[in-house]
Amino acid sequence: MAQLSPAELDETWRILSSAERAEGFVLLPRDEAEVFLLSLSPHDQEELVWSLAPAERRFWMRVLEPDDAADLVQAAPAARREELLALLDEATRTEVKSLTAYAEDEAGGLMNPRFARVRPEMTADEAIGYLKRQSRRQVEIIYYAYVLDGAQHLEGVVSFRDLFRARGDARVRDLMTTDVVTITEETDQEEASRRLARHDLLALPVLDSRGHMKGIVTFDDIADVVEEEATEDIQKLGGSEALDEPYLAIGFLRMLKKRAGWLAALFLGEMLTATAMTFYEKEIARAVLLAVFVPLIISSGGNSGSQASTLVVRALALGEVRLRDWFRVIRREAAAGLSLGAILGSIGLARILLWQGLFHTYGPHYLLIACTVALSLLGVVLWGTLAGSMLPLILRRLGFDPASASAPFVATVVDVTGLIIYFTMASVILRGTLL
Amino acid sequence: MAQLSPAELDETWRILSSAERAEGFVLLPRDEAEVFLLSLSPHDQEELVWSLAPAERRFWMRVLEPDDAADLVQAAPAARREELLALLDEATRTEVKSLTAYAEDEAGGLMNPRFARVRPEMTADEAIGYLKRQSRRQVEIIYYAYVLDGAQHLEGVVSFRDLFRARGDARVRDLMTTDVVTITEETDQEEASRRLARHDLLALPVLDSRGHMKGIVTFDDIADVVEEEATEDIQKLGGSEALDEPYLAIGFLRMLKKRAGWLAALFLGEMLTATAMTFYEKEIARAVLLAVFVPLIISSGGNSGSQASTLVVRALALGEVRLRDWFRVIRREAAAGLSLGAILGSIGLARILLWQGLFHTYGPHYLLIACTVALSLLGVVLWGTLAGSMLPLILRRLGFDPASASAPFVATVVDVTGLIIYFTMASVILRGTLL
Repeated sequence: MAQLSPAELDETWRILSSAERAEGFVLLPRDEAEVFLLSLSPHDQEELVWSLAPAERRFWMRVLEPDDAADLVQAAPAARREELLALLDEATRTEVKSLTAYAEDEAGGLMNPRFARVRPEMTADEAIGYLKRQSRRQVEIIYYAYVLDGAQHLEGVVSFRDLFRARGDARVRDLMTTDVVTITEETDQEEASRRLARHDLLALPVLDSRGHMKGIVTFDDIADVVEEEATEDIQKLGGSEALDEPYLAIGFLRMLKKRAGWLAALFLGEMLTATAMTFYEKEIARAVLLAVFVPLIISSGGNSGSQASTLVVRALALGEVRLRDWFRVIRREAAAGLSLGAILGSIGLARILLWQGLFHTYGPHYLLIACTVALSLLGVVLWGTLAGSMLPLILRRLGFDPASASAPFVATVVDVTGLIIYFTMASVILRGTLL
Repeated sequence: MAQLSPAELDETWRILSSAERAEGFVLLPRDEAEVFLLSLSPHDQEELVWSLAPAERRFWMRVLEPDDAADLVQAAPAARREELLALLDEATRTEVKSLTAYAEDEAGGLMNPRFARVRPEMTADEAIGYLKRQSRRQVEIIYYAYVLDGAQHLEGVVSFRDLFRARGDARVRDLMTTDVVTITEETDQEEASRRLARHDLLALPVLDSRGHMKGIVTFDDIADVVEEEATEDIQKLGGSEALDEPYLAIGFLRMLKKRAGWLAALFLGEMLTATAMTFYEKEIARAVLLAVFVPLIISSGGNSGSQASTLVVRALALGEVRLRDWFRVIRREAAAGLSLGAILGSIGLARILLWQGLFHTYGPHYLLIACTVALSLLGVVLWGTLAGSMLPLILRRLGFDPASASAPFVATVVDVTGLIIYFTMASVILRGTLL
């Protein structure tokens, strides 16, 4: 294999075998190889490092910062983890082990325990010199230095800009901000991401329950989280479990399992439509015309329900809507459902009248049929919109993820109830004529 | 109004009137007010600044960096923009005007023209001192200093960490990285966001066509973009236009317009189901039992189609799948569709046989009916999965956004064709018995 540039390697990465990847990687110059390795996902990092020769493998494991090493180890199959940990030096191994102890979605698991620290009594010049020395060790210097007292309590934070701007003899104590946005090791990573974004920060300090600073969570870890969370939500809204791996990379059977579960569950729910239809078999036999509009009615309910639930799920994820806003959401969606139902109902009415005028499709009772369809659409769309907007709030209230397949789940619920609404409406309006 | 802390103001923000917001804001201490203002969305910033007294309004407009001021001006109603621009000093106004000239989704519009620069021939100590002086002016000092020659050509980039780590007399030329990830003013902001994330950078330098450096785009602007883009995709997938405003903040009529358009379009498409059903009215009249399974069949196609299209839309957005991968996607989805169809078909078969055993629901030809339903499910799910995965690729190929309502759109397409598959299957299998 000829030597590839990092860009070429990146371009062809997905079509290379593990052995080819390793071969291309070891031919890169040392510093380009490091940048390249860090640009890979933990999953790809692990596969690559694992396929290297033992000496190379040890070397690259030791290049990684503890938080990155922890991600790599967590991406490895369980059987390899001990062996990977054994490649690290003693001190890093301890740090990595403690990081991997956090639940996957806790801030503690994203934390880097090596951060830049200064003392409140230092001058700006002393602090800059001290940071200069720290930066030679493996410390993540990222725009902020954290001001700790002797007992490792966080007293404040000072940005490089503040230190640069200040007179050289100004005290850190007087330059620092004491109003610091912090998180704990157990903070959910979505919450950490929201705080980082809200305050436009590059890093958040992580405190334990006694206010001791344990590490920092930085924007680059969080940026990945934001994207991952959005992907999970989108995939769940689409009626699948989150794949957790790139679409073309995930094994076929693993993908199938994640997709088949929800589809089968929705199918079982949807079977209730067959039960409901069986219940109305006599009506259909008497007025076959009724069956003609069944797909139209239930899909309108399904579409309006998915739309409402998608909007509410995203608003919940962004923190735009909270549980206590439920009544405002109901009021909005009741109004939206009525309006949307009226619009679709009118279109449906117009369509039936037009077809009747053109082709005489619907027989002598076309007006009653048109009313049945239009009023059913109004009812089904209103119900779909309300059910779609409330379901995510209820799921959140019960402690579930509101995104879990809620759009297709709502569609299923609305399909069954939509049939009931439609046939009830028909039996009232058409009694004595068609029924 | 009593003085509120920034946290209290933030907490109550959504329920306060413009006047109350302004009142609470002016009572904040100067530095807390600045942090608070910067934490708001451009839209809220504009409303707040606009509702302040003229002197306050001028003061706060001048506090903003040019890129933030440009965002604020773009968030303002057209009629107010000139007046807001007039509040800026001459130099900033020119910068802001040139920033607002970019298309909304171009990197140029996110760019801050004030960045930290050094010369290649400086020593590390000189560069640190020079950065110190720049930081006193309104320069966005964000971890990197850009190395420019006399003609403003970008020669390389050096991080503070590199400067700190180096010996004081080392030359910037020898410390800098020359392999710089850059963007142009016209780079799409999604692409900028991908490069930033891919290389774990805090900022990207923006070059014009002649290689002159014009400014930087920083992680905090990009983080907002990532979230906005995901929100747009999610809302479009849910069968609505992107709201572009928070759910509870957007005006009711504006929201209704964005939702009614797609729902009505889908409804018009769905009317084809009524046409198709009319076409099969005779078959239904002869075998009412056939109508019973219509909702089950079409919703299974719809669900599998939404699932496939959602997965492919997200994979396209993340760059995991590109257009040229279309054949790999087809192959995967053909296999997935067959497997999922076989699973749902088997469940359907089992359900019919079970009900027949328990309740004798389906009459003497139950076995033929069971076969019709099971084979239709196989066909409809396979077709839904293929259509769902290809539609986003086709939309992208034609230059449209693959997310545009594609999940419900696929469901609609699959509903109509699903009916055709089902009744064709029925007419073949049941000819001579039920039909």
